[in-house]
Amino acid sequence: MDREKLIELLEDMSLEEKIDQLLQVCSYYYEKEGVITGPENEAGFSEEEIQNAGSVLGGGGAKLLRRIQENYMKKQPHHIPLLFMADVINGYRTIFPIPLAQGATFNPEIVEKAAAISAKESAASGLHLTFSPMVDLVRDARWGRVMESTGEDTFLNSRLSRAMVEGYQGKGELKEKGRIAACVKHFAGYGAPMAGRDYNTVELSERTLREDYLPAYQAGVDAGCATVMTSFNTLDRIPSTGNKKLLRDTLRSEMGFDGVIVSDWAAIEELIHHGMAVDKKEAAALAIEAGVDIDMMTTCYCSNLKNLVEEKKIDEALINEAVLRILELKNKLGLFENPYKDASEADEAEIILCKEHREAAKDAAIESMVLLKNDNILPLQKEGQSIAVIGPHVDNKWISGVWSIFAKIDENVTVQEGIKNLGIDNVTFAKGCGFIDPDSGIDTYHKNQNILEDNKIADKLLEEAIQNAKKADVVVMPLGEIAIQSGEASSRSNIDIPKVQMDLFEKIYEVNKNIVVVLFNGRPLTIKSLSEKAKAILEGWLPGTEGGNAIAEVLFGDANPSGKLSMSFPYNVGQVPVYYSEFHTGRPYSDEQKDVKYLSKYLDVPNAPLYPFGYGLSYTNFDISKVTLNKSELRNGESIEASILIKNTGKVTGKEVVQMYIQDKKGSVARPVRQLKGFQKIELQPGEERKVTFTITEEMLRFYDINMNFTSEKGEFVVYIGNDSRTQNQQEFVLV
Amino acid sequence: MDREKLIELLEDMSLEEKIDQLLQVCSYYYEKEGVITGPENEAGFSEEEIQNAGSVLGGGGAKLLRRIQENYMKKQPHHIPLLFMADVINGYRTIFPIPLAQGATFNPEIVEKAAAISAKESAASGLHLTFSPMVDLVRDARWGRVMESTGEDTFLNSRLSRAMVEGYQGKGELKEKGRIAACVKHFAGYGAPMAGRDYNTVELSERTLREDYLPAYQAGVDAGCATVMTSFNTLDRIPSTGNKKLLRDTLRSEMGFDGVIVSDWAAIEELIHHGMAVDKKEAAALAIEAGVDIDMMTTCYCSNLKNLVEEKKIDEALINEAVLRILELKNKLGLFENPYKDASEADEAEIILCKEHREAAKDAAIESMVLLKNDNILPLQKEGQSIAVIGPHVDNKWISGVWSIFAKIDENVTVQEGIKNLGIDNVTFAKGCGFIDPDSGIDTYHKNQNILEDNKIADKLLEEAIQNAKKADVVVMPLGEIAIQSGEASSRSNIDIPKVQMDLFEKIYEVNKNIVVVLFNGRPLTIKSLSEKAKAILEGWLPGTEGGNAIAEVLFGDANPSGKLSMSFPYNVGQVPVYYSEFHTGRPYSDEQKDVKYLSKYLDVPNAPLYPFGYGLSYTNFDISKVTLNKSELRNGESIEASILIKNTGKVTGKEVVQMYIQDKKGSVARPVRQLKGFQKIELQPGEERKVTFTITEEMLRFYDINMNFTSEKGEFVVYIGNDSRTQNQQEFVLV
Repeated sequence: MDREKLIELLEDMSLEEKIDQLLQVCSYYYEKEGVITGPENEAGFSEEEIQNAGSVLGGGGAKLLRRIQENYMKKQPHHIPLLFMADVINGYRTIFPIPLAQGATFNPEIVEKAAAISAKESAASGLHLTFSPMVDLVRDARWGRVMESTGEDTFLNSRLSRAMVEGYQGKGELKEKGRIAACVKHFAGYGAPMAGRDYNTVELSERTLREDYLPAYQAGVDAGCATVMTSFNTLDRIPSTGNKKLLRDTLRSEMGFDGVIVSDWAAIEELIHHGMAVDKKEAAALAIEAGVDIDMMTTCYCSNLKNLVEEKKIDEALINEAVLRILELKNKLGLFENPYKDASEADEAEIILCKEHREAAKDAAIESMVLLKNDNILPLQKEGQSIAVIGPHVDNKWISGVWSIFAKIDENVTVQEGIKNLGIDNVTFAKGCGFIDPDSGIDTYHKNQNILEDNKIADKLLEEAIQNAKKADVVVMPLGEIAIQSGEASSRSNIDIPKVQMDLFEKIYEVNKNIVVVLFNGRPLTIKSLSEKAKAILEGWLPGTEGGNAIAEVLFGDANPSGKLSMSFPYNVGQVPVYYSEFHTGRPYSDEQKDVKYLSKYLDVPNAPLYPFGYGLSYTNFDISKVTLNKSELRNGESIEASILIKNTGKVTGKEVVQMYIQDKKGSVARPVRQLKGFQKIELQPGEERKVTFTITEEMLRFYDINMNFTSEKGEFVVYIGNDSRTQNQQEFVLV
Repeated sequence: MDREKLIELLEDMSLEEKIDQLLQVCSYYYEKEGVITGPENEAGFSEEEIQNAGSVLGGGGAKLLRRIQENYMKKQPHHIPLLFMADVINGYRTIFPIPLAQGATFNPEIVEKAAAISAKESAASGLHLTFSPMVDLVRDARWGRVMESTGEDTFLNSRLSRAMVEGYQGKGELKEKGRIAACVKHFAGYGAPMAGRDYNTVELSERTLREDYLPAYQAGVDAGCATVMTSFNTLDRIPSTGNKKLLRDTLRSEMGFDGVIVSDWAAIEELIHHGMAVDKKEAAALAIEAGVDIDMMTTCYCSNLKNLVEEKKIDEALINEAVLRILELKNKLGLFENPYKDASEADEAEIILCKEHREAAKDAAIESMVLLKNDNILPLQKEGQSIAVIGPHVDNKWISGVWSIFAKIDENVTVQEGIKNLGIDNVTFAKGCGFIDPDSGIDTYHKNQNILEDNKIADKLLEEAIQNAKKADVVVMPLGEIAIQSGEASSRSNIDIPKVQMDLFEKIYEVNKNIVVVLFNGRPLTIKSLSEKAKAILEGWLPGTEGGNAIAEVLFGDANPSGKLSMSFPYNVGQVPVYYSEFHTGRPYSDEQKDVKYLSKYLDVPNAPLYPFGYGLSYTNFDISKVTLNKSELRNGESIEASILIKNTGKVTGKEVVQMYIQDKKGSVARPVRQLKGFQKIELQPGEERKVTFTITEEMLRFYDINMNFTSEKGEFVVYIGNDSRTQNQQEFVLV
């Protein structure tokens, strides 16, 4: 259908019908037979409102969604199909590592492929849109939702924002088979809640918002993302969902976004809690004026917009533009021609969790794992070594992260299963202890998970574990958080590994010092003590369906870890937020001045995190040569080639992420100590050497100057090329 | 001298002579005989530069400063006197509690008197100006310099900003005897360093800067403060010392400040570290253009301004205006008539540490102490009770805070001395352990303080302490930080009481549960465990010269504590920044919804701090009636009287701080959950009842609206009146 037809359609619609298009309701209003029932109706919808809503979220499965659509289309006077949306964050049924782990792959191809596979499975199940990618910049590990971001860096997040949008949507038309629409979220700044507490106030200067936070959203917009979701938080004390300047001026006019803006869950109604609206009617007016097209799960729009128009408090044109955008999205997805799109039970049976998809999930998991420490203990020997695997996560199925709502956790492969799948003998397995501490707060919300049960039989578990450890050459300890300790509304003030697990570690350490820790977690944890005592630490994140296989292959050397931290691991929680691209300050600390008092530092911990952004080891060694520049002056319109030679000097094949950081030595405003401006992940055979080249252009050097113009400033720059954010391998050049 | 004469004088001066006026050097360039020598010249001044500098900082004492002035005046061709400045923060020689403790008095009269006495002693010693008050808003307990602020609240800080300026300067002329010029600092936003690390980047929106941070500076300006100091930090990524918009547009034009702007120590040169200037010459140009009049301790101005003028890179008019402001300040102080002002060895002998001053210091210390907990154990009985005082601070003299540079710590009264001064028998004293942990970082900077010594003889100390505790009815434990764990460049990532002291507490607790803890500290500490186990906790801060006497009088009931927390005490460090005037968020947590997951909260700790702002107990009880309003509608130009009846229902006389908070229920932007808008500290005899009335005006309801206009908005408000920031004693009114 062309745009003119859509406008004609719009003109045929009554005001009520138009408002229906703006409502999104949850799939739980539809029972399995695809007809509407009314349970759990906390939001207070009438049956008619639910029946006429223009989009549905949260449901999946070709059979269900086809029936819902079929019933809906029978009654829809204009033959406008429903739009089905859901949170497919790191996979539909084939679950990939959580986004924070995907960030650690530093591999846009892997990330794009994960999104593409997720799209295929989702599309077969009848979905049209996923609420992904979340591209919020995150620098505070207390926030539980860091798991859903690709990390602390603007450049990496921007690159992966594009990869995910292109993975879901493809580069052709949305109506193509296996494609679904993406939704860049949460606009804007949701990743910076005060004190790491979810939904809390965000305090950012306009400059920092624009320079550090907006680029990843912009990258998603530039990649053609169909929709953008508003954030829960305030920015400049204005809730995003009622922020006209942010949505209309910044997102639409400046950033050029012309797709659908959807509120986050109930966010329009929450304008009342924010104290910006006195009631739902005022909230509706604020949101439609701000430019929010879809009202997710509140009656604000459906109960009030008509009155607001009739009372001339809002212009009907606001509704028309929102509806037109929604019709255009449905049209782009080809739903007017085929309201079911790719929904197919046969396709579901064929592709969901197919071998190819599981292989891709395993590859992604392997590439996401970060070897934080290795004192010549990894990889383990497949034979001739007795191994005790000890820790509560040893056979934990729930390793797919909380945002894998269509996952069946029984399909996930545990560490124990992964090791057995490799056919390793001479291995014992023991849980050793329970997952969490009594003060973790988890039991309050998950009384039925039985996660506290193991703590009650702790002594027996411990005894078994100690006996196993005593007999083993090496102990592998899968430790960390359970899935529900990260994710939305799961902020932690204490980001240690649960005490019950650290107590287990200490008991095992007493009888066997050869400990390899495998970490499960949705956020950076404070692991100072482990970093001192464990012989090796493998960061496994929440690795998804194939997690156990991936971990086993890495532990036993069938795969070589190549992940790099996407977020700094703080020394302790008193150091957060801590991230690499900080500012010099007027009194920069350096180790040479450690006896000088009046410098920017703490008395009791270093400024640097325990493990920095971009850090990660390999089973092989890479030599990186000094940086070579093809010229030392950069003239406008020209570029500089910065290169290094990298050689695999070890004995096994491996991948290395070569990272380029640039420092602007002087600006009209303070500039970060360095910023990631390029990375390449390359694979080298033992002995193989390769030249890696980055192109530096003037565009890469732009920032918001003292007058808030986005521009570069002439002067001296330093380019660093190495394998983590601390590299001192550098050359200088001048922008003239 | 009138202004015209000063202008004539300015016109007579050579460019070099004018630039000399802009330089401030440290008193350590002058030996005791008052002539210039050249040691410790890290800043790189020439002898001539030091000789001609227009102001001197850091020195005190009538004899020294008279000699320096005398020698200077002999050579000064225009008879322009030197200006002597120093950090007199909480007292010159009579040391008052640290500013954070002064905030806890909630008593502007006490605070003004402390400043007035400090001014008298300073003036007698030859000083003309103190670098006080520091009115930076502070909400992160990790920052060591919270000790120098009056706390987390804009209203309280503003009120005490005025009290301090008026205390130092009086309300008449600066040249009056016993008056010195004040310096409001640090402009602006220094109190909000990222992650609590001193000098670190400050990230604030323009709105928060204006609404929360600027008012306390404005209050100082409105009170007529003679000078303002620039802050070390960047704001909007621009270092304050080079921030023309901040200093000229905001401070001078908008806020109406026409006094002298002085850089913080070396802050002009630090523009180079910030990456805003390539060298001292550029730094000098940026600072003079930004409007910084005095260059503290760098050669930026004195070595470069002349060349900059001659090369026409800056306008000489910039220098002229700076010099004129400095001459005006010297003139206001009466220095042209009497360059020695009040410097007098006889006066020093008479007034410094005189009885009246010590009494005032004791009163201030008493009013600053906050009774955090009391399970019917305090006050102690003077007779018939055996008491063991155990803890490293038992006889610690260094209780005056790090910014009491003229203090003689031997003159401070310790807890042990204070108790002995009361003539209490049946008391034993024991240190029990050392002050700090090996990883405190203190030893790096204070190798000669011997503060680690006690840790080496720990077993012996512990044994003595345990024996004392076993024999006692009650144990009083003076625990906490030593002075150098707070203050400038003393940020801590861990704000617990040192582990060595908590271990001591646990050992004592094993043998005697009747423990009264007296806290010494320069910041809120995390004292969850103490709050559960101790029978009473008295927050003693760093109480100054009379600290031990004040504590003893409070412990034994000669004085009744009446302090209220000026800063929230966090539950744990993972909760910071935590403060009472936060925002609702879109998903506000309430205890009624504690089983609801998707609310703004942590999994593992409450949102609320352990002890909130405004909190503090008494030895008596106060009943506060419901709030009465004389009308429920506020019309422009009118006011509402909000009142309560308060009655002392206990058995002893006591003071209570009645606090009024107002909530704006709805705004065009999100509004804080409540804001302090008034407080009155009143004394009541047992059985005495009094009506306390607050006047609510439209002006008090103004804020920066969505268009950044400072205005009020019609609608509903809630007024709370009670004795801490959690009070639910409320009435509603409407602004019409």
